Amino acid sequence: MPTISDKGALMPESPIRKLVPYAEKAYKEGKTVYHLNIGQPDIKTPQIALDAVKVHSLNILAYTRSEGSEEYRQKIANYYAKNDIYVKHDDIIVTTGGSEALLFTFGSIMDVDDEIIIPEPFYANYNGFSTASGVKVVPVISKIEDNFALPAIEEFEKLITPKTKAILICNPGNPTGYLYSKEEIQKLAAIVKKHDLFLIADEVYREFAYDGNKHYSIMQDFGLEDYAIVIDSVSKRYSMCGARIGCLVSKNKDVIKTALKFAQARLSPPTLAQIASEAALETPQSYFDEVITEYVERRNTLITELQKIEGVKVAKPKGAFYCIAELPVANSDDFAQWLLEEFDVNGETIMVAPAAGFYSTPGVGLNQIRIAYVLNKESLIKSVNILKEALKAYNN
Amino acid sequence: MPTISDKGALMPESPIRKLVPYAEKAYKEGKTVYHLNIGQPDIKTPQIALDAVKVHSLNILAYTRSEGSEEYRQKIANYYAKNDIYVKHDDIIVTTGGSEALLFTFGSIMDVDDEIIIPEPFYANYNGFSTASGVKVVPVISKIEDNFALPAIEEFEKLITPKTKAILICNPGNPTGYLYSKEEIQKLAAIVKKHDLFLIADEVYREFAYDGNKHYSIMQDFGLEDYAIVIDSVSKRYSMCGARIGCLVSKNKDVIKTALKFAQARLSPPTLAQIASEAALETPQSYFDEVITEYVERRNTLITELQKIEGVKVAKPKGAFYCIAELPVANSDDFAQWLLEEFDVNGETIMVAPAAGFYSTPGVGLNQIRIAYVLNKESLIKSVNILKEALKAYNN
Ligand SMILES: Cc1ncc(COP(=O)(O)O)c(C=O)c1O
Ligand SMILES: Cc1ncc(COP(=O)(O)O)c(C=O)c1O
Repeated sequence: MPTISDKGALMPESPIRKLVPYAEKAYKEGKTVYHLNIGQPDIKTPQIALDAVKVHSLNILAYTRSEGSEEYRQKIANYYAKNDIYVKHDDIIVTTGGSEALLFTFGSIMDVDDEIIIPEPFYANYNGFSTASGVKVVPVISKIEDNFALPAIEEFEKLITPKTKAILICNPGNPTGYLYSKEEIQKLAAIVKKHDLFLIADEVYREFAYDGNKHYSIMQDFGLEDYAIVIDSVSKRYSMCGARIGCLVSKNKDVIKTALKFAQARLSPPTLAQIASEAALETPQSYFDEVITEYVERRNTLITELQKIEGVKVAKPKGAFYCIAELPVANSDDFAQWLLEEFDVNGETIMVAPAAGFYSTPGVGLNQIRIAYVLNKESLIKSVNILKEALKAYNN
Repeated sequence: MPTISDKGALMPESPIRKLVPYAEKAYKEGKTVYHLNIGQPDIKTPQIALDAVKVHSLNILAYTRSEGSEEYRQKIANYYAKNDIYVKHDDIIVTTGGSEALLFTFGSIMDVDDEIIIPEPFYANYNGFSTASGVKVVPVISKIEDNFALPAIEEFEKLITPKTKAILICNPGNPTGYLYSKEEIQKLAAIVKKHDLFLIADEVYREFAYDGNKHYSIMQDFGLEDYAIVIDSVSKRYSMCGARIGCLVSKNKDVIKTALKFAQARLSPPTLAQIASEAALETPQSYFDEVITEYVERRNTLITELQKIEGVKVAKPKGAFYCIAELPVANSDDFAQWLLEEFDVNGETIMVAPAAGFYSTPGVGLNQIRIAYVLNKESLIKSVNILKEALKAYNN
């Protein structure tokens, strides 16, 4: 009997999916489960995007260009210009979600055994794409005490070897909610230039910057033309995760030329979703204003409620829609499973993401969880109350 | 300045895309170009599939399950049962096109420097997925004189090394149009069992089997439960290439479990396209009858006309919608470019795919082209006439 590859064996399981069987058990027992574990927002997709596919006049659902239609890329460039990011349509390759943009980027700039430095905790699937590409993730720890700010640049410097090809940041951060300052980006710019590395910024949460804080893109005025690669996606921006449209942006022509070859091999990004995504670009500002107001209220509610629980430490997120909370438990994997299997308050319980899966360093983050505030305020208040009661019961 | 990866440099350019700039030049000069170069059919997508997305009632375009919804996979299993292929929904992972199914398969069963044996000429993007996965394609030549039948099994046996992990066939074949017989599949079954290899069959053209010939799937009664992996797609079956929906099918649980990890890393296949693809399963048999009748007529027309040209040799395709023709030219790359740049008959010319890109062995297929009969009969007759006149002019 033939066997699977070593790479396949090494592919990580999603830290979120591991709990799914326990959630399914909870449903079977009739429990209500509040899902704080995934980045699937409950926010409505802009009507203009939903409608665009309803009125399509296609007779043949054909392939598009591998890099996305010129018209759509031109419109994306216009969107960027409004965000003070000046790129041309041919600096952009439309991808099947930000996920594929990450995969193409890793393949285009790294060979087997090359290294990529990523501040941890980080988006867990960076591990999957690294394993798939045979690349080694080198983590640099950011701390809850610092709100997960950029680690000291010397910490990066210590980790750079001849195999290091890139630094990857997520801004604003999943799972940290941290938003990098202009100074932090400047520091990163300096170090990648000094060591001839690529700087990859996953900016899929660009719009989700709170409290009047500005989002700084690495594609702005940091002199990173040859170094910067931006990962982007419509998934969170327009709450259209199921579209599977994202893009890769770089002014480095070799990167675009190379990523295009990966894009050509898989022929084309999804056509219907490109129609929806092109229409989504016409979403009125009022939509974003409402969404941001909603997320800020949720975040405030969540953080306020969490801070009331004894022994819980929480970093205040400045962006995205996640926060990491440190709990008075030894192992949040166990605790998360126990919440689904053993606990309820009046038939209700919560599903959270154990944070260990967002760290690459073994043993770190064991007492942390990630909470996605993708539910309405009432559900969040109920959820935090369940957490509070659960911690009492669990620690007895 | 940081540089791209060796892998990125090695990624092949699509053999079809290379000619695009010359085609664009031809358009600019006002020429009409008949596209015989790509597998994008002109056949209408079933109305039922196009309509399904028009009436969607989604408020949030959300992620689906990474492996596709259970309901859709169940329906796919029913479709297979009608084709004498007996699988369960959990033997299936829904992918973003057959392309992604290939990528997941390569990643799941092969490590860097592992080898995969493929009869050539083969679908050019197998090269891209191999390079992306760091895997080595080992070609075994099939011949136009034999209509591209399966090479003698000893030819495979000679090529097997400890690094060999799989044999990949495309059935019916792109670019050959060859349809493997039951005996050929039996021979392949015997050799993969003997050497503990996976047998991958790309069956995206399953429905396109002509002249009353039956299509044999490796998932049928060949005793290949542990060995067989089928690559499938809605792209050609329903002429909905732009949907980007396919699937990977295997009864080997380890393969499915491993491929699922790759699927989870990229979150989900496109949601709207799954709606269209699920609806497409209800396409009436009359649609396929018409389409097959149309393709058979096109093939007959094309082959008859090609055979009239002196010095042209052509294999008669039994399936899919491609054929390989051998021309009295030294280099079909040059010739294809010349057709676009220098030649026309009353302002009309043709775009064909030079066949060298479908071979892995250097120097083979240089005098061959692939013709996709994705145009109507009148256009095909005109196209072959252009080819005939072109050969005369070119060889002067
Ligand atoms: C930080 C980050 N990057 C990338 C992605 C990938 O998203 P998609 O492939 O839907 O664009 C996600 C999804 O949750 C994410 O959180
Ligand atoms: C033989 C073969 N396999 C796979 C594919 C990939 O198609 P898709 O990704 O659209 O399913 C194609 C497309 O032309 C093909 O010809």
